Parts: sequence; structure tokens; C-alpha cells
Amino acid sequence: MEAWLPSLITATPQEGYELAIKLSRMAVKYTQPSAEVRAQLRPVYEKDADSLTAVSQVVAINFQTVAAANNYWK
Amino acid sequence: MEAWLPSLITATPQEGYELAIKLSRMAVKYTQPSAEVRAQLRPVYEKDADSLTAVSQVVAINFQTVAAANNYWK
Amino acid sequence: MEAWLPSLITATPQEGYELAIKLSRMAVKYTQPSAEVRAQLRPVYEKDADSLTAVSQVVAINFQTVAAANNYWK
Amino acid sequence: MEAWLPSLITATPQEGYELAIKLSRMAVKYTQPSAEVRAQLRPVYEKDADSLTAVSQVVAINFQTVAAANNYWK
Amino acid sequence: MEAWLPSLITATPQEGYELAIKLSRMAVKYTQPSAEVRAQLRPVYEKDADSLTAVSQVVAINFQTVAAANNYWK
Amino acid sequence: MEAWLPSLITATPQEGYELAIKLSRMAVKYTQPSAEVRAQLRPVYEKDADSLTAVSQVVAINFQTVAAANNYWK
Repeated sequence: MEAWLPSLITATPQEGYELAIKLSRMAVKYTQPSAEVRAQLRPVYEKDADSLTAVSQVVAINFQTVAAANNYWK
Repeated sequence: MEAWLPSLITATPQEGYELAIKLSRMAVKYTQPSAEVRAQLRPVYEKDADSLTAVSQVVAINFQTVAAANNYWK
Repeated sequence: MEAWLPSLITATPQEGYELAIKLSRMAVKYTQPSAEVRAQLRPVYEKDADSLTAVSQVVAINFQTVAAANNYWK
Repeated sequence: MEAWLPSLITATPQEGYELAIKLSRMAVKYTQPSAEVRAQLRPVYEKDADSLTAVSQVVAINFQTVAAANNYWK
Repeated sequence: MEAWLPSLITATPQEGYELAIKLSRMAVKYTQPSAEVRAQLRPVYEKDADSLTAVSQVVAINFQTVAAANNYWK
Repeated sequence: MEAWLPSLITATPQEGYELAIKLSRMAVKYTQPSAEVRAQLRPVYEKDADSLTAVSQVVAINFQTVAAANNYWK
């Protein structure tokens, strides 16, 4: 895997949130390395409310980590 | 994405809770950018008890982050 | 939404737990504002073991927040 | 509801774990106050592996709270 | 229940992880005390990918607790 | 089980994330020790969007632990 996570520090809360999204997607990429298969899955979960809520939950957990790393940007 | 998260600091616990709701919704918006599709999904999950509980769980996780950022408004 | 969360501080652990229940319910109320629809959903999930466990999980997450806010009532 | 949670402090880790189990059950009791209905649900989830895992997850979350309250019994 | 949790302190991270597995299983044992029933459930969930992921999630939550108790073995 | 977790400390955030993936997989290995069975399960969950999201959630929880152990690599 190429280098993709040099740091958990971000300039703003919003960049931290976007890093949390990236963290959430990377576990999928590690588990399913085929970009083709991932592309086939996208149309399914992106139109399923419960799937989207589940994605949002993973982002929320990763955002806890990123926010703590940044001392909540205080 | 436009700027939407300038800070995790809020004046009151209730505003913090409402920010947690926003954080929960934004992951869905990033994953499913189409407002039209999101509008189609709403009637499904808003009448499903388990879907609503799942939404509430994501809000609870995000509220942990917001509450910690605000030192629990103490 | 009316004011409903003036503080996370409670006098006792039990009141804190009951606040966690309230926090869990409010996300549902924000997402499904219709009291009528919510009343229709209640008979479903209150007789489903897995639904009740899911509710209990959300309460547990919110109770972490309330307990931390109260320094665990120590 | 009668008084049932005077404190999060316990003498031992095991008593803390058992308090976490109680905390997990109480949210169910608050949501479904009928002992009769709860008794009907028990035979279902206690023979379902996924239901039992879900119960274990709620206990794990509550145990985090109880353990932190007791400074991990150190 | 016999004594089974004298301490959260372990000599190594790996022993801590194994304690997290034990913590995850004990909630199941408290909820379903019959060793016979638990033995019947095992062949089901141990061949179901989603069940195994759910087990892994409970272990992850308990490992957070054990790791914090041991100050991350630093 | 052989020694597999000497430390939670890693040189970089990315190595920490990869350790979180390993932690997530080890609970599955402890629960289902047969490499053959695990190999049979892989084609199922690696093509199921919800299964992949669930895996990503476990990684996120373990990454919280690893990140805290490393003081967020600050």
C-alpha cells in the first residue's frame, strides 16, 4: 500500500472530518483491493439508507480519533 | 464541499447535540451527494424503528466528540 | 425545537442514566418529528428483542457521555 | 422507576462487569416495562448467536464506563 | 458465577487482547448460562462472516478498556 | 496462539492503522481457528458492501486504541 496517512493533524475541523471519511474508506480498500469490485458495490450501498447510516457511523468513530488527535482544534 | 464545520465549540449542550446531528448527516451527504436520492431515502428510514435507532446511535457517537470538545459545557 | 437540554450535569448516576435515555430518544424525535408516526413504531420495536438491544446500545453510548460529564459522580 | 443505581463504584472488576450487565438490561426495562413481554422475548434472543453478540456489545460499552469510573480498579 | 475477573492488568498486550476475548464471551455466558445451548450456537456463528465481524467488534471495544487499564503497556 | 502482539507502539500513523487491521482480524482467527474456513468466508464478505462497512467499523474502533497508545503520533 502506498503512503496515505502521514499524520492525523489537520488545519481545520472540516479537514479532520474529511480525513475521517478517508480512514473509513481505507479499511474497505485494504479488505477489498480491487477497484473494480468496489465500484460495483457503490451503486448498492449509496442508495440504501441503512448502508449510508452504517457508513456514517464508521466516519463518526474515526472522527473521534482525529478530533482527539487535534485536541478538538481548540 | 462548501465550508460547513468551522468549529466544534457550541454555546450550549443543545446546540452541541444539534451539531452532532449535522455531523451524522454530513457523512451521508459526502457518500451520496445527490439531494434527490437522499430525498427518496428519507421516507423509508424515517418510518423504520431500527433505522431510526441506528441514526440515533450515530448521533450519540458524534455527540461524544462534540461534548468532549466543549469540556461537557462545564 | 424547544429547549430540552440545559445541562449534562445530574444529581445522581440514575438521573444521568435517565438523561442518556432522553438523549437517545431525541435523535429519533429530530429525525421523525411526527409524534403520530413515532407512536406507530413503538409497538414494533418494543416487542423485538434485537430492537431493544439496539436501543440499549444507544443509551450505553450516551451514558458514557453523561457519566464523563459528571466525572462519574465521584 | 425505583432507585437502582446508587453509584458506579464497585469493589472489584467482576462486580463492575456485573453492574455493566445490569446497566445494559435497564435500558430494555425502561423501554419495555412489561416483565411479561420481556419474559416472552428471552427465549428468542438467548438462543440466537447474533443476538447474544449484540448483548455482549452493549455490556462492553457499559463496562467501559464502569471501568473508567473505578479508575480501572488500579 | 465463580470468580473470573480478578484484575484488568496483564503482563503483555497480547494477554490483554486475550482478556478482551474473555470479557466478550462472559456476557454471552451470563445471558445464556447453558453450556449445551452455547455449544449448539457455535457452529452457526463461526462459519458466518458477519457474525465473526460482530464478535471482533465486541473484542475491539473490550480491548479499548483493557488497553486503557494497562496504560497501553507503555 | 503464537506471539503476534509485542506492542501497540508503531513508528507512523499508517503502521498504526495497519496494526488496527491486524487486531480486527485476530479476533476472527481466535474465534475461527481454521484457515480453510476463513478462506471460504472471504469471497462472501469481500463482495458485500455492508460486510465491508462492518469490517471498517471494527478497524476504526481498534485504530482508536492504537492511536491513543501512540499519543496520536504527536
